[in-house]
Amino acid sequence: MRRNVHIGSLGIGPSYPVRVESMLKTPLSVDRELWLREIDDLAAAGCELVRVAFPDMALGEQLVSLVKDSRIPVMADIHFNFALAMASIEAGCPAIRINPGNMGSREKLQNFAAFARKHGVVVRVGSNSGSIPESKIREADMDEAAALADSVGDQVRLLQETGLEDIIISAKSTSPRVTARANEFLARDYDHPLHIGITESGYGERGIVKSACGLSLLLGKGIGDTIRVSLTEPSINEVRIGRLILQSLEIRRSYPDLVSCPGCGRRRVDVQDLVRLIEPALDRLPPDLTVAVMGCEVNGPGEAAHADIGVAGTATGAVVFSRGKVLQRCSLEDTGKAVIAVFESLAEEISGSGKGEPLR
Amino acid sequence: MRRNVHIGSLGIGPSYPVRVESMLKTPLSVDRELWLREIDDLAAAGCELVRVAFPDMALGEQLVSLVKDSRIPVMADIHFNFALAMASIEAGCPAIRINPGNMGSREKLQNFAAFARKHGVVVRVGSNSGSIPESKIREADMDEAAALADSVGDQVRLLQETGLEDIIISAKSTSPRVTARANEFLARDYDHPLHIGITESGYGERGIVKSACGLSLLLGKGIGDTIRVSLTEPSINEVRIGRLILQSLEIRRSYPDLVSCPGCGRRRVDVQDLVRLIEPALDRLPPDLTVAVMGCEVNGPGEAAHADIGVAGTATGAVVFSRGKVLQRCSLEDTGKAVIAVFESLAEEISGSGKGEPLR
Repeated sequence: MRRNVHIGSLGIGPSYPVRVESMLKTPLSVDRELWLREIDDLAAAGCELVRVAFPDMALGEQLVSLVKDSRIPVMADIHFNFALAMASIEAGCPAIRINPGNMGSREKLQNFAAFARKHGVVVRVGSNSGSIPESKIREADMDEAAALADSVGDQVRLLQETGLEDIIISAKSTSPRVTARANEFLARDYDHPLHIGITESGYGERGIVKSACGLSLLLGKGIGDTIRVSLTEPSINEVRIGRLILQSLEIRRSYPDLVSCPGCGRRRVDVQDLVRLIEPALDRLPPDLTVAVMGCEVNGPGEAAHADIGVAGTATGAVVFSRGKVLQRCSLEDTGKAVIAVFESLAEEISGSGKGEPLR
Repeated sequence: MRRNVHIGSLGIGPSYPVRVESMLKTPLSVDRELWLREIDDLAAAGCELVRVAFPDMALGEQLVSLVKDSRIPVMADIHFNFALAMASIEAGCPAIRINPGNMGSREKLQNFAAFARKHGVVVRVGSNSGSIPESKIREADMDEAAALADSVGDQVRLLQETGLEDIIISAKSTSPRVTARANEFLARDYDHPLHIGITESGYGERGIVKSACGLSLLLGKGIGDTIRVSLTEPSINEVRIGRLILQSLEIRRSYPDLVSCPGCGRRRVDVQDLVRLIEPALDRLPPDLTVAVMGCEVNGPGEAAHADIGVAGTATGAVVFSRGKVLQRCSLEDTGKAVIAVFESLAEEISGSGKGEPLR
């Protein structure tokens, strides 16, 4: 049985939903308003933990401010520096990512671990395939996935030797297959929660497909406690795609359930066009709703009488209905707005049925 | 061991690459030029088999013409009608999708099967979860995946009883999990090639993520001989996403391998911006190429000396190089065009190294 860890009040591990993470793309060195806005947007999109690079002691005040103002827990990302790792804890970060082999000495690592334990800080360790020495792969005659898992194992043992227990581990590669195999080794050999993701998966369709494929290989086997989709895109896209992946795999529901009729001779509107028109509105509704999109007013509201909110095409636009009752008529262009308006007027009545977890 | 089938010269099964299919969105009833263009575009994008709805005997001539002019094999899609099934074979279709329970009678099914065998026609059968009677699920006390697989099994047995052997089977649901489990049952129980996909997966990010997740659950276990990504989008997008899924899972390579440097203080250009600028060109290059995108001219061409084609940022734009030698300077905006020009000038020399399979 894998363990749980707690980053502040955020539980990560087998007792909790798979978490969705991202990383701040705005550097701490720029205007505070900019990264505050990014963190707010991330939190609103459903991000539950945000990692931030802390590369310079001169940015200590900014880190303190970020930790204080962020609505979600902040994990400091430290590459090589003992002093930065200690400063992150002092700044109040509830989680830190380090490379325990880069803390300078065993003694410093021991000091860091003691300080982390004292403050209840969760430490993430792990490797990317890019950072594994070729020599390691050759020497051990290992394949890339085994070498990656082995390299992560070295870090985990270094940290375990300090007595620290609240550890998250990760092994990432640009290859979904290599990432999947490496994490299968880690899930077999360690009981710490696993952070999973595909590094440098790119942007747009390439990045989305690569991430969805790689994460599915693992999540389909029940491996992975917290995910990050790394895209060369605004960070909120990482969160949205991450949540869509969890929703597609029926692991976690973040968006309303959408049902639509297949369309027939009676339809007054292309059902697929109608879905497109209301999709932006869909994302603003709580995930426990069922939303129906039907081709015609004659049968639509009746057939979709179970829907919390429904839309059906008419000769001149659309009607919005709720549990079988038509509530509003509108033009096609205004369907999205009308759906939101109907939802708001009915919010207390139709929301909170407890099937999902409201995000916003 | 699963069997192979052959649709004309297109092999499908364990001895062949996983095939990429789509379905013609232009109805046969509209102008011939339109569906010819769609099929040409599909073939150019890497579609290997195209399904087309044949709902009406009045469209017989159009089907003959389509089969004759298409560069890729055509599978006729017949829902309920014995006469249409027979007419599709007469029209020269090398493959037909039918529901053997809907051919009118055992005798008609037998006649159809004999005619199909005589013409070497491959027959696909299968169910979508939407078409399984609720009663079947309740009666048998089965979960949805088992009921889906069972319903497909009924069809396969009907067809097997006719002596027909060249069968492709499919079980699709809107749920990736249900689709995956149903196909695991089918892979265990039957030795016919499996066509896999998620029905009505939607459009845009939702559809792409759902399809990538669902197909990964199966392809990751080695299940699936031919795929269709069903998107509410132009059919060539289905092919592109299908091929990206196979590429991401390292099952089949359709696009050049892209390597890029992580960027450093010396970079003259944002490497990710540069990747975006050349991506449209990337898709026009053969898949056996390695393309490098590097941040600076100082180290780029040398570090990426193994790349067939590379691009590096300069103070005023970019350089395009091949195997370490700078060949052309250009503005950033013209990088894509310059990559294609360099490729064309070197095509004989750098292509055809045999690592991949050229598509276009």
